[in-house]
Amino acid sequence: MHPRFDELKTRLAEIHDLRRAQEILFWDQTVMMPPGGSSVRGHHVTTLDRIAHQKFVSDDVGALLDDLAGYEQELDYDSDEASLIRTTRRDWEKARRVPAELAAEMTGAAAEGHDIWAKARAENDYELFRPVLERAVELRRRYVECFDGYDEPYDALLDDYEPGMKTAEVRVLFDELKAELVPLIADVGSVEGDDAFMAGPWPVEAQHAYSLEIIRRFGFDESFARLDLTVHPFCASSGTQDIRLTTRYKEEDITSIHTAMHECGHGLYEHGVSQSLERTPLCHGVSSALHESQSRLWENIVGRSRPFWNHFYPSFQAAFPEALGDVDQERWYRALNRVKPSYIRVDADEATYNLHIILRFELEQEILAGTIDLKDLPEEWNRRFEEYLGIPVPSDTLGVLQDVHWSGGGFGYFPTYSLGNIVSVQIWEKVLAELPDLPDQFERGEFGELYEWLRERLYSLGRKYTPQETLERVVGGPIESGPYVRYLKDKLGALAAA
Amino acid sequence: MHPRFDELKTRLAEIHDLRRAQEILFWDQTVMMPPGGSSVRGHHVTTLDRIAHQKFVSDDVGALLDDLAGYEQELDYDSDEASLIRTTRRDWEKARRVPAELAAEMTGAAAEGHDIWAKARAENDYELFRPVLERAVELRRRYVECFDGYDEPYDALLDDYEPGMKTAEVRVLFDELKAELVPLIADVGSVEGDDAFMAGPWPVEAQHAYSLEIIRRFGFDESFARLDLTVHPFCASSGTQDIRLTTRYKEEDITSIHTAMHECGHGLYEHGVSQSLERTPLCHGVSSALHESQSRLWENIVGRSRPFWNHFYPSFQAAFPEALGDVDQERWYRALNRVKPSYIRVDADEATYNLHIILRFELEQEILAGTIDLKDLPEEWNRRFEEYLGIPVPSDTLGVLQDVHWSGGGFGYFPTYSLGNIVSVQIWEKVLAELPDLPDQFERGEFGELYEWLRERLYSLGRKYTPQETLERVVGGPIESGPYVRYLKDKLGALAAA
Repeated sequence: MHPRFDELKTRLAEIHDLRRAQEILFWDQTVMMPPGGSSVRGHHVTTLDRIAHQKFVSDDVGALLDDLAGYEQELDYDSDEASLIRTTRRDWEKARRVPAELAAEMTGAAAEGHDIWAKARAENDYELFRPVLERAVELRRRYVECFDGYDEPYDALLDDYEPGMKTAEVRVLFDELKAELVPLIADVGSVEGDDAFMAGPWPVEAQHAYSLEIIRRFGFDESFARLDLTVHPFCASSGTQDIRLTTRYKEEDITSIHTAMHECGHGLYEHGVSQSLERTPLCHGVSSALHESQSRLWENIVGRSRPFWNHFYPSFQAAFPEALGDVDQERWYRALNRVKPSYIRVDADEATYNLHIILRFELEQEILAGTIDLKDLPEEWNRRFEEYLGIPVPSDTLGVLQDVHWSGGGFGYFPTYSLGNIVSVQIWEKVLAELPDLPDQFERGEFGELYEWLRERLYSLGRKYTPQETLERVVGGPIESGPYVRYLKDKLGALAAA
Repeated sequence: MHPRFDELKTRLAEIHDLRRAQEILFWDQTVMMPPGGSSVRGHHVTTLDRIAHQKFVSDDVGALLDDLAGYEQELDYDSDEASLIRTTRRDWEKARRVPAELAAEMTGAAAEGHDIWAKARAENDYELFRPVLERAVELRRRYVECFDGYDEPYDALLDDYEPGMKTAEVRVLFDELKAELVPLIADVGSVEGDDAFMAGPWPVEAQHAYSLEIIRRFGFDESFARLDLTVHPFCASSGTQDIRLTTRYKEEDITSIHTAMHECGHGLYEHGVSQSLERTPLCHGVSSALHESQSRLWENIVGRSRPFWNHFYPSFQAAFPEALGDVDQERWYRALNRVKPSYIRVDADEATYNLHIILRFELEQEILAGTIDLKDLPEEWNRRFEEYLGIPVPSDTLGVLQDVHWSGGGFGYFPTYSLGNIVSVQIWEKVLAELPDLPDQFERGEFGELYEWLRERLYSLGRKYTPQETLERVVGGPIESGPYVRYLKDKLGALAAA
């Protein structure tokens, strides 16, 4: 072992410890902390963040990476060691380019912007929000200028969430998706059904018990994981053996069952990372889209499938007698998979969700390029929304103001949600080809072989490779929209025809 | 404002943030973390600890303190600013004296020692534990050598928990206490009563509800505090508005009610520190003994008093009908205050507890001085235990091996428990002289005026002054054993006479 490699690993472990501590502080803040704690918690998190950043962007880390260039060449490309040096070099070169002042300004603007956005959304007042958006855009343009070598400015933003992905690639994928989905949704979106029972009541305790019942079958286990309550569900972790899922319950809807499966998908990915990568920067899922592919796979491909419900429906119906006593499985399945255009992205069904994303992806590029005047943004939002989804937007609260992302300058994140959908089916086709009896296993309530396959092929790799290399290793090719379009057409077509 | 003072405050705030983050990680580890998380959590905590220590003992902090010496002289001694400089200088000079290697060696030995101690205690095998103790003593002697200016070696250890307190002072106090308590306990310890009902059952849910009922009256409030479960109860906090109490429940005993009051006392102290001290090293209780004086005041002086139970007993009895249905208030009160020599310190009653502590204090000094051969320690323990408490020790598990403290080299901590008892009554006499109707308020279930007095006179000061200055400000004089001895004699005498 190269002595400088030990030094690098020790330094990165220290930085990683600070990052993991931050993750637990964030979890604690949103799940456990008494409200009074907020007055100082922000400082604790900011301090950890600043120290971790300073330690990482230091010249010392650069010198270590330089000294290890020769050693890296001698190593097997697939070794943990080579991967650590390679990935760290990429992270370091990127992190070095952003001046501390700009990073601090972006953080400050995000914090201020959040509160103004919340007020603007509550009051349906886009003009109140517009200065926040203007500042966020200006800061993001300065951020983009820190980098070079990209084909177009939006590439630099996308790269933060999906390293190596190009805007042009996403454009092709989304254009293919849009061309297929707009007519498909116009068609199946008109199929009506009696879904009144979905209003519940769904007793909260039964929701919690049933959420646990399902995710335990997926592999969730209290020896390495928790499930708690929060306002906006997420998954955090402090290592592969400490996974924190969060969810929420409302008496009047049953979305929590799929929220639990979704967050469990994220959690299983983090849990499955090879323990040899623990306390290194490789100990995480590789990108937002790959992560989302796993939350979506467990939530949608598994959790909205017929084999899954063939197994679970009898006990599910028994767990919610008031809501489901008179509802047969077919009626539940159809309601669960109903395609119906609606205004709010996070409430959208599996198919229309992508059109919400495509709209944001297009607008983000134009906002960044300045080809759209921010004064006209609501109008442009509403025009395209109706074009893609077929319904008029009744207010900015239900339109351009609905999402938190832009208030914090988070441009470039939205597309990864739909990229995750696309990738999820590519991976599903691959695993199904190798394990054709998975649907039969689901009918029996068994999911262990699926988890094992995903762990071995995908989860265990962590951040050893780029997202593109990772996907290539899992499915044998690059990202493509075909499988996902086929999946939606088959599933929704069958529902519309029946 | 001196510009260098701003620099100092910023640096100390950063270090304080790291310490507070550590405290939340510790709370999370013992209260929330899935067991699997332990493989990396130790690293996270160690990393935060090391960074905080390095940042604090730096030459830069010393230079800031030097530059601010003149400014400090100009400031009012009582100002937050002068107190911050003064207290930080003391902390810094102390922290600088311990080499990083020795600190690391002590930490490592404590971690290893803990597991061996646990095994030795479980197997009643003192000889297994002896090498751990030998190493701990050797390391502590090296630690003591880092310092000078003390009258005797034990002073240096005591100073870590009770800054400024001298071993000679403690010796005088404890000798006074022992002279009074040994005959008193021999006398009242023979009073028998039918306490069989104390074995329960005490349903755990009712224990939790009633614990909350009581501590809410003391001032506990979910807006700034939580109460959770753990194995060894403690109180942690991340600031004055984020207080984490912990407790435990066992069906077969009702000690949890007083555990909750005890931890609540610690929590109210931390909550009451002036918010002007937030994010500074002054934002904590001033010493172990002062802290313990508050946990004991709320637990014992309030929570084992007649006025308290005159208010609570009817609802308490109703909450535990199976255990208390046939038990009148007087019988409960007597059982609760029963003095009865027993082996385990943490289970000891209010009076005998101090003899457990005095035994340890005496042995610790002799161990450190080398005047006792560690081979003979169990024999010496047992001999003195019987002399002080009148009962023979049946095994080392119930004797010299019972406490965790020595396995980690924690000499000097034990005496602060009894010093806390002593101080608690000094403060109680003072507050009662100023607010003579407090017992009437307790009869009505009102504790707000007591809390307010303590907050204003003691809690709000944080670490602005030394423990001795702090006590002087609260009670108008130094620590003395008289009030505590009077309190025990009056209370136990009345019980024995009736």
